[in-house]
Amino acid sequence: MQDLIRRTPEVLREKLNIEVMTGHDVSEIDLQARRIRIQPINGGGETFEPFDRLVIATGTTPIRPPVPGINGEGVFGANSLDDGSRLSEAIDRKDAKKAVVVGGGYIGIEMAEALLTRGLKVSIVDMLPQVMGTLDADMAALVGEALTEAGVDLHLGEKLEGFDEAGGTLAAVKTDKEVLAADLAILGLGVRPNTGLAEEAGIPLGIRKAIEVDDHQKTDEENVWAVGDCAQSFHLVSGKPTWVALGSVANKQGRVAGVNIGGGDAIFPGVLGTAITRFMDTEIARTGLQEREAEEAGLDYVSRTITGHLRAGYYPDPGQITIKLIAEKSTGRLLGAQIVGTRGSARRIDIPAVALHAGLSVEDMINLDLGYSPPFSSVWDPIHIAARQTLKLI
Amino acid sequence: MQDLIRRTPEVLREKLNIEVMTGHDVSEIDLQARRIRIQPINGGGETFEPFDRLVIATGTTPIRPPVPGINGEGVFGANSLDDGSRLSEAIDRKDAKKAVVVGGGYIGIEMAEALLTRGLKVSIVDMLPQVMGTLDADMAALVGEALTEAGVDLHLGEKLEGFDEAGGTLAAVKTDKEVLAADLAILGLGVRPNTGLAEEAGIPLGIRKAIEVDDHQKTDEENVWAVGDCAQSFHLVSGKPTWVALGSVANKQGRVAGVNIGGGDAIFPGVLGTAITRFMDTEIARTGLQEREAEEAGLDYVSRTITGHLRAGYYPDPGQITIKLIAEKSTGRLLGAQIVGTRGSARRIDIPAVALHAGLSVEDMINLDLGYSPPFSSVWDPIHIAARQTLKLI
Repeated sequence: MQDLIRRTPEVLREKLNIEVMTGHDVSEIDLQARRIRIQPINGGGETFEPFDRLVIATGTTPIRPPVPGINGEGVFGANSLDDGSRLSEAIDRKDAKKAVVVGGGYIGIEMAEALLTRGLKVSIVDMLPQVMGTLDADMAALVGEALTEAGVDLHLGEKLEGFDEAGGTLAAVKTDKEVLAADLAILGLGVRPNTGLAEEAGIPLGIRKAIEVDDHQKTDEENVWAVGDCAQSFHLVSGKPTWVALGSVANKQGRVAGVNIGGGDAIFPGVLGTAITRFMDTEIARTGLQEREAEEAGLDYVSRTITGHLRAGYYPDPGQITIKLIAEKSTGRLLGAQIVGTRGSARRIDIPAVALHAGLSVEDMINLDLGYSPPFSSVWDPIHIAARQTLKLI
Repeated sequence: MQDLIRRTPEVLREKLNIEVMTGHDVSEIDLQARRIRIQPINGGGETFEPFDRLVIATGTTPIRPPVPGINGEGVFGANSLDDGSRLSEAIDRKDAKKAVVVGGGYIGIEMAEALLTRGLKVSIVDMLPQVMGTLDADMAALVGEALTEAGVDLHLGEKLEGFDEAGGTLAAVKTDKEVLAADLAILGLGVRPNTGLAEEAGIPLGIRKAIEVDDHQKTDEENVWAVGDCAQSFHLVSGKPTWVALGSVANKQGRVAGVNIGGGDAIFPGVLGTAITRFMDTEIARTGLQEREAEEAGLDYVSRTITGHLRAGYYPDPGQITIKLIAEKSTGRLLGAQIVGTRGSARRIDIPAVALHAGLSVEDMINLDLGYSPPFSSVWDPIHIAARQTLKLI
């Protein structure tokens, strides 16, 4: 994959006649002069690059809280391929036995799995009283159980205070409640949009300091576009600005901006915050609004959680899936869904995701003609059962 | 499972106060007298059972063409648990080596897998020039390849003419083109609605002699309802009557009739003909209109087929999925989808299925916020890629 990344500039040049100036730092976007100020990373003088149209795709920066010891030996990020190589090498070199993962979100639990697989004892520290903050507490508790069963020590509701060194290397992770011995610490605290350049240039930022864009990915500034993790989106359910840093969203936004810059007319309708991951044999997925978000959006909602089989109940190993649906109380309109279950569960999230795009109600969902045969589901798919149970509350 | 079936009448009686008269044959529906004529299967006199409301749920009858030898020893159906037990027992008893499956649809290929697993040499005979008639020929060819690779001999475009016996047992299956030596033959020719009683009572039948019902599952006759495999449905894409004999449809129709009989107002919106199955490691699914059906419905359509990965391309074992989308040329509205791929492919069919329910276009589908992370898909899900490629033809 490193090779692919290195080859990309060549391919862009040869196939699309796009010049890629890798190895340069951009230090200023000058909107008045319509140019950017750049400088080679390995030294050399500042130059300027003029533009007619500018696309800002500056991505994110990992969140690194300014606590004592954060830049010390043994504290690793989890944001790049290089981070992964460095961590892997350090496990061997230090003959590491204990790792503390700071952050219990997607990256945190993926790192926990990787470290368990490498034979380490793993703890997760999170400020929230639950892992997976994008799930409601009841669904997150199922993920917490899976982590605990796999041997991960959860330290929830604990705030990171710093890292202790001994003999020039990491010795412990300190929270506001305890001191956890650690050979390695991994930061999985998420990212923030990398929008300093845009802000300095006077381009308006919006929610969580992501760049404000319209549904064509255009910023407030003429001929300036922003796409990907540095740009905001609109939430398809609440209609409000939101910020989702995911490659799937970034790619769609890039396509929309490209069509528009090329003279076409494409709209990016928005996002649902659909996400999917797994920890060992437990699959996890969510889409749309969680309860907290429904409340924040001022929606009167009901929610229902069911547990069912992935395959026909009489089938060998029928699997288990827990589905939570959230619907608007007055109309029955689906607002969101969350799934935790055994292998094969998580992709069911696409069903409520498409339903949310289309504004379907839970009543509509009862009659969805989904794929049925015994190796793949019961005659009533668990999604149907969840919709039926939710409808009873409308 | 046999136990569950036997226990069902007790459960219905005890929990729901529903009397189930198993072991009875119905010989007449008398609409004038509002009664049915019944007779115990094990002998005893005819009696009448009056009704205020009647639900006809008579299911289907396996298709058994009237060819010589069809009722002979060694020719098996594939429609009931008992059929399965009898076949399994016969394989052992006869030390069977060669089986011919007549019919290359869902049941036919499932039987082929079961017989291969039991160590038999398997041939499939089908009148059509392809297996899986509910797929377009190009997609069916992929299934044909999987069958051939697994060692199944395909005899397509051949019509069953009869069965030869030798020494009181099956010796060969005869088609209009050849004679295939066989120790066992299995009929997988599908089913037809079991609607003789309804027809004799004067209840109108519709497409393929299924009972005509409205969107409340009511027949033409006051207080007479029909549900499940004996009843017709409406196709959600073409709007025309259609007939789909699947448990998932039957259950939804049963719920709708139940709500309406109970004084409620429920509508069964219709079906897409969504179906999903697998042969060994090849998964197969379809929904909506296939090309032939789009033509029959008088729709001007385009279609596009793509092959992609199920998981991120750099992931170990990224899997392979082929997706065909069919869309209306003038509007881009999705009309149907077909999938053939490795394990994990088929459930992607739910995405176009929900899109068809909602009347989405392939352009809408490009921006669907589907679950993305490397173990589950690429940043552009293969469904997105198929939609993008199809949009180019609109």
